[in-house]
Amino acid sequence: MRATLLQDDGTITVDEVPVPDLSEPTDALVRVTHSAVCGSDLHLLHGFARRPGGRRMGHEAVGVVEAVGADVVSVAVGDVVIVPFSWSDGTCSFCREGTTTSCVRGGDFLMAPSALQAELARVPEADGTLVVVPADVEEEMMPSLLTLADVYLTGHHAVVAGGAGPGSTVVVIGDGAVGLSTVLAARHRGAERIVLLGRHADRTDLGVEFGATDVVPGRGDDAVDAVREITRGEGAHVVVDAVGELATYATALDTVRPGGVVSRVGVPRYDDAPLGLAPVFRRNVTVTGGVAPVRAYVDEVLPRVLDGTIRPGRVFDRELPLSEAAEAYRLMDSREALKVLLRP
Amino acid sequence: MRATLLQDDGTITVDEVPVPDLSEPTDALVRVTHSAVCGSDLHLLHGFARRPGGRRMGHEAVGVVEAVGADVVSVAVGDVVIVPFSWSDGTCSFCREGTTTSCVRGGDFLMAPSALQAELARVPEADGTLVVVPADVEEEMMPSLLTLADVYLTGHHAVVAGGAGPGSTVVVIGDGAVGLSTVLAARHRGAERIVLLGRHADRTDLGVEFGATDVVPGRGDDAVDAVREITRGEGAHVVVDAVGELATYATALDTVRPGGVVSRVGVPRYDDAPLGLAPVFRRNVTVTGGVAPVRAYVDEVLPRVLDGTIRPGRVFDRELPLSEAAEAYRLMDSREALKVLLRP
Repeated sequence: MRATLLQDDGTITVDEVPVPDLSEPTDALVRVTHSAVCGSDLHLLHGFARRPGGRRMGHEAVGVVEAVGADVVSVAVGDVVIVPFSWSDGTCSFCREGTTTSCVRGGDFLMAPSALQAELARVPEADGTLVVVPADVEEEMMPSLLTLADVYLTGHHAVVAGGAGPGSTVVVIGDGAVGLSTVLAARHRGAERIVLLGRHADRTDLGVEFGATDVVPGRGDDAVDAVREITRGEGAHVVVDAVGELATYATALDTVRPGGVVSRVGVPRYDDAPLGLAPVFRRNVTVTGGVAPVRAYVDEVLPRVLDGTIRPGRVFDRELPLSEAAEAYRLMDSREALKVLLRP
Repeated sequence: MRATLLQDDGTITVDEVPVPDLSEPTDALVRVTHSAVCGSDLHLLHGFARRPGGRRMGHEAVGVVEAVGADVVSVAVGDVVIVPFSWSDGTCSFCREGTTTSCVRGGDFLMAPSALQAELARVPEADGTLVVVPADVEEEMMPSLLTLADVYLTGHHAVVAGGAGPGSTVVVIGDGAVGLSTVLAARHRGAERIVLLGRHADRTDLGVEFGATDVVPGRGDDAVDAVREITRGEGAHVVVDAVGELATYATALDTVRPGGVVSRVGVPRYDDAPLGLAPVFRRNVTVTGGVAPVRAYVDEVLPRVLDGTIRPGRVFDRELPLSEAAEAYRLMDSREALKVLLRP
C-alpha cells in the first residue's frame, strides 16, 4: 500500500510500504478515506525527531473498518470511523478521568510507525479509540468529521480547559487551523467576546465567520494594548495560546485578567517560562491546557457536527490526492494553505 | 498606640506610633484583639522589602470596630470583625469574580503602612473588607476566626483552585501552618487520600489529626517515590505547593498525575519554572493557585467554624502579648513555634 514518508533529507514522498496486519487482537485495520496535514507534521518536517530510513507521517483520519481483531466488539467491518490522533483503551484511570492522551495502553499516531497519511492504518485499542459515525453521512460532512480527529477538538480542549463560557472574554493567539477552531469552539460554548490575534487577513476573515468579535493584527505590544482597550483595561478571562512560543506565552500573560486562565494548545517550544510572583501568582493566573484528549470529547461534539450546528471542516481550504502529499506539505509550510485534506 | 515594627537592622520592636484616623469615608478603625505572625512576615524579616525608618508589620487580625467613616453601612461601632489580609471593595469586576486580592481599590496589609500587629488599624473599604462575627462568640473560638484572615483560607484556596473533592488524592508539600491548613481544608472538602510531605513530626502529627491519611518525611526523590507508591504509580490529582521553592515545584510536577493540578499557595521564590512539553503540556498538568482571595471564601467557611465542624485555630501553638512580638518572631523563625498568636 502507499503511505507518506518524511525522508532523511527532509523531502516528503509517497511510497509503497508493507500492508499492516492485526498484530494484536484489540487492533482494527482501517482503510483511510480522508487524512490531513497538521501544523505538528511541519515540526517534523523541520527536523524534529527524524528517523533514519524515513518516518511515516500523519495522525488525522476518517476511514472504513477493513478488519478487526478477535477481541474487538464495538466496531465492525464496514463501519465508517473517526480515528483520533492518539489511541486509548477507554478503561484505564486516566481515560475514565478524560485524559485519554495519557492512557496506560495508549500511544500517538504522530510518533507511530502506523501513521495515518496512508491507504491503510493499524489502529491499536480499537474499542477505546475508534468512533463510529452513521454510514449514510454525506461526503460534504467528511471534512468536519475529520477535524474531530484532532484540530477542532484541540480548539475545543483549549476552551474547555480554560473554562470559557457565557459571559467570558476569550483571546485566541494564532490564526492557524487550531486558533480558528478555538474561535469556533469558544463561540459554540457561548463566549461573549472572542478576540482573535492573527496576521493573515484571509485567515482572520474565516475567524470572524467562526465567531470572532474582534480581530487584532499581530501578537506583540500593540496587540496587548489593543486587547487591554477591548477589555476596558482588565484583560481577558481566558487566553488561548495556539502557537506555543515563549513570546506568545508572554502575550498571554500580558492579556489575561487577574483570576483568569492561560490555556495552551500550541505545543510549547520552550522548557522554562515565567511562573513567578508578579505575572502569575499575585494575579491568580492559572496555566492549563496540553495535548488534547480528543477521544474524551468526540461523543459530546459529534452530534453538533452531524446536525450542522458547527462546521469545523471549513478550515480545510485545499484538497489533494495522497500522491501529491509533498505538494500538500509545501502549501502548508509556505502558508499558502490553511489546512490540506489528503485523499488516499 | 503601640505597633510592631521591623527596623532597618532586622530587629523587631514594639513602639509608640500615631493613632490612625479615618482618612477616607469608606474607612473603619478597628481595635485589634488578636493578631498573628505569618510565614510571609518572616520573608520580610529576612530582608525582603525593608523600609528606612522601620516598617509596620502584620496582616492578620480580629478586632472590634472602634469608628466608621461616613459612607460605611455594613459594620457598626462595637461589631466584632475579621480583618482579611487584603482589603477589597466587594463591587469591582474582580471582586465579583472572586479574585478580591486584585480589587481595583484594594491593597494588602502585608505591604501597607497600616499593618495589623498593632493596637488599632485603619481598614480601607470597610464595607467590602470586614466580616462581622456574632458578638457572643466565645474566646476559645477566636484563634479559629483569626485563621480566616489568612492562613486557613489560604489552604482552602489551594484546595478549591486545585479542584480537590470526593475521590481526590491530594499531596500537600510543606508542614507549616499553610500546609496543615490545606490538609484540613482538603479533608473538609471530602478528599479521599491526603498525603502530607513534611519533615517535622510534631507538625505532621497535627496534620494527621487534621485529616492526613499518609505522612511522607521530606520532599525530595524519596518522597516522590513514596507518593508514586501510594498512588499506584499514577500520581495525585492535586498537589499543593505550600512552600514556594523551585525544588518544591519540581516535586509537585513529579508527583502530580496526568490531567492533574499543581496548586501553589507558597509564594514562589523563582521567576521562571518548567512549563514545557514533557513535564506539563504532554501530561495536561494545570498550574493554578496564587495569593488567596480570602474575602471571597469567608462567608462560606465561617459557619463551619462557628458550628465547630472545623477548628483551624489549632495551628496556633503559642500565644504572646504584643509587647513580646520580637520573641514571637524568634519562635517562628527558629521553628520552635508553628504559629504565634499576638494579643495587643
